[in-house]
Amino acid sequence: MIVELISVGTELLMGNIVNTNAQYLAEQCAGLGISMYTQVVIGDNPERLADTVRTALLRSDVIMLTGGLGPTEDDLTKATVAEAMGKKIVRDARSVERIKQYFEGGIYRAITENNWKQADVIEGSLVLDNNNGLAPGMIAEKDGKAAILLPGPPHEMIPMFEEFVKPYLKEKSGRVIRSVMMKCCGIGESQTETMILDIIDRQENPTVATYAKTGEVHVRVTAGAGSEKEAERLLDPVVAQIRERLGEYLFTCEEKKTLEEVIAEQLLKRGETIVTAESCTGGMIAARLVNVPGISGVFKEGFITYANEAKCKELGVREKTIRQFGVVSSEVVTEMAEGAARRAGADLALSVSGIAGPDGGTEEKPVGLVYIGCYYHGTTVARRYLFKGNRQKVREQTTQYALTAAWRMLNDSLDRSE
Amino acid sequence: MIVELISVGTELLMGNIVNTNAQYLAEQCAGLGISMYTQVVIGDNPERLADTVRTALLRSDVIMLTGGLGPTEDDLTKATVAEAMGKKIVRDARSVERIKQYFEGGIYRAITENNWKQADVIEGSLVLDNNNGLAPGMIAEKDGKAAILLPGPPHEMIPMFEEFVKPYLKEKSGRVIRSVMMKCCGIGESQTETMILDIIDRQENPTVATYAKTGEVHVRVTAGAGSEKEAERLLDPVVAQIRERLGEYLFTCEEKKTLEEVIAEQLLKRGETIVTAESCTGGMIAARLVNVPGISGVFKEGFITYANEAKCKELGVREKTIRQFGVVSSEVVTEMAEGAARRAGADLALSVSGIAGPDGGTEEKPVGLVYIGCYYHGTTVARRYLFKGNRQKVREQTTQYALTAAWRMLNDSLDRSE
Repeated sequence: MIVELISVGTELLMGNIVNTNAQYLAEQCAGLGISMYTQVVIGDNPERLADTVRTALLRSDVIMLTGGLGPTEDDLTKATVAEAMGKKIVRDARSVERIKQYFEGGIYRAITENNWKQADVIEGSLVLDNNNGLAPGMIAEKDGKAAILLPGPPHEMIPMFEEFVKPYLKEKSGRVIRSVMMKCCGIGESQTETMILDIIDRQENPTVATYAKTGEVHVRVTAGAGSEKEAERLLDPVVAQIRERLGEYLFTCEEKKTLEEVIAEQLLKRGETIVTAESCTGGMIAARLVNVPGISGVFKEGFITYANEAKCKELGVREKTIRQFGVVSSEVVTEMAEGAARRAGADLALSVSGIAGPDGGTEEKPVGLVYIGCYYHGTTVARRYLFKGNRQKVREQTTQYALTAAWRMLNDSLDRSE
Repeated sequence: MIVELISVGTELLMGNIVNTNAQYLAEQCAGLGISMYTQVVIGDNPERLADTVRTALLRSDVIMLTGGLGPTEDDLTKATVAEAMGKKIVRDARSVERIKQYFEGGIYRAITENNWKQADVIEGSLVLDNNNGLAPGMIAEKDGKAAILLPGPPHEMIPMFEEFVKPYLKEKSGRVIRSVMMKCCGIGESQTETMILDIIDRQENPTVATYAKTGEVHVRVTAGAGSEKEAERLLDPVVAQIRERLGEYLFTCEEKKTLEEVIAEQLLKRGETIVTAESCTGGMIAARLVNVPGISGVFKEGFITYANEAKCKELGVREKTIRQFGVVSSEVVTEMAEGAARRAGADLALSVSGIAGPDGGTEEKPVGLVYIGCYYHGTTVARRYLFKGNRQKVREQTTQYALTAAWRMLNDSLDRSE
């Protein structure tokens, strides 16, 4: 089965945004064992969009379109696909109701007329509810081909793909694909690859691929077979072998699980709590933890102490320590972590202090220099990092490595005590 | 002049990497006033690549290809483009020399045979030196059309584009483009469009387009002309007219400026400071503020008070208020904002308390219910919001509307006092 991707949007052709949707959908299709030979980006122009859709319907089995489902005049995707497939546009009663509900008690006073356009769908199509926006998606079929229309904003598109499109593609492709995602932290991609290179080279089914994320490496092991059982039989020994190699770096084998979730689960199991004391990250570490539903059991509060005075006032860092070692130092993050733990009565405390840039760097303490402190059960470990990239990138890496530090600390103690 | 972009690489079709090259080149072309109607991503397959190149050469004046210039067997770009243009491949003596130099004193012992393939170029083309890698780029022309071949790795492609391709395209296009990005908050996309629909419909040059972001709407006005002066003459009256319509919702006309930067600038100008007191956002508002370089002048600290006890202990929220009105209430965010301002000695304080879900909602207080408080100069305004979407989406919208509240508060006081 061949899938072709069409990203609709002048903002992509103008370079206003990066096409992360294409990467996400390509990765998903690869994971489902579906071939993608072409991706096209096209603007809000009716003739060129129509040409692109017709060409794609000729050479591919499924065309997947993102964008152009909104309320404005240049949202043309539905009309164009309908015409290319010889189908009509009709107003979908359920989507009308959903739009009404969306606006009820909402923040905008009136529903402008053009909003109802979003309830228009291709006749006979399977309408996909949008739980994170107004425009529904849809799947239209004709002569064994299918057109899948999805909204452009990633936070609307991704949940819709997961809930409706993935199962649809799975069934249509008729092949069972099973994959396991093995997530590691505290290790680089090339180091990971070196550790398992012989396995990667040897395997055809399952295939083994590595993906580098900020501060994490994900290893995907994918097997295709005629049945679920057969796919798992192929998968299991390879996963076991890789698990042994990756050892202490592996934090989960669950696709959807994040590092912060693993940390939250471990703390919850032990009946312990965590507190954060952040300088350059300015709340990003706490925000990652609060991503986890039900975090209230382990996270009660966090401190953002950006100014030196705030570090002293809120966390009890001594002015003398700042004067003597500088605010970006092992000593200061140690006092921050210990102060935060004391103040919040928490079992584990994470602290960071660094120079995120673009200004503030010196020869001795350059932009990208960050100290991360982690206090747990009476012990504090402080580490020095030198991150590359712009302000945002330095802060993201700091956040990731702080969470990694918490995870390591929790699991070192696991080794010792269990 | 129409440019078409062809990104060559199976790793793009597999979703292993995000196509940031396409965004970069699209943005560059838009800045040069060159139209890009289509972008294609294609794999390392000779027939499909040849098809794509032939189609592109028919409908576009310039085709720009990235990737597939390397030494391995699946690097097919040069041979394919040469064939489509009816040209030969020849070995370039200068590039041979440069490859030799590259390896001298390097980390690899021997130059493997396939490396010389990188010195092959399309006959009669302008060869572009690669100062950050081995494979040179090239520009081949025929019958008024041009094919520009660039290496795939961004750190090789971008400097080569800047040095050689940009001046080439500038000269070839002979056209100037100017655009203004007008950013609004506190208003929806369809409402914005309704406010300026007659202008959008009337305009051909400049064109007017709206883009929806979380809690923001951006309006881009773009004019093309023979000279910079002429482009600005076309742009100015339309921008002025839209500015008048958007009025109080418009927070900046600068492309790169964010809402948090505008807030930071206004506070800095007044010599005032801001503090945050966050519950469900868990640090996201502070993290947005700390995105701004030089924020230390206005942001000293922030409080993440996720648990009720933390709200009382850190911010002085009264237990009685929580008991009487519930923790997600106008009264509690008011006490949070006022307590945070007092505690930090700040002029402006933002506070949020809400139910981000997926659990914790009731009929009276459903998931998505959020109160945002904003204290400034002795006055606190608390507003109720009901956001849609998953946990992350509710928190992102809360963050955006909290910043919007701060911006409104600062500008209301501007109206009164200035």
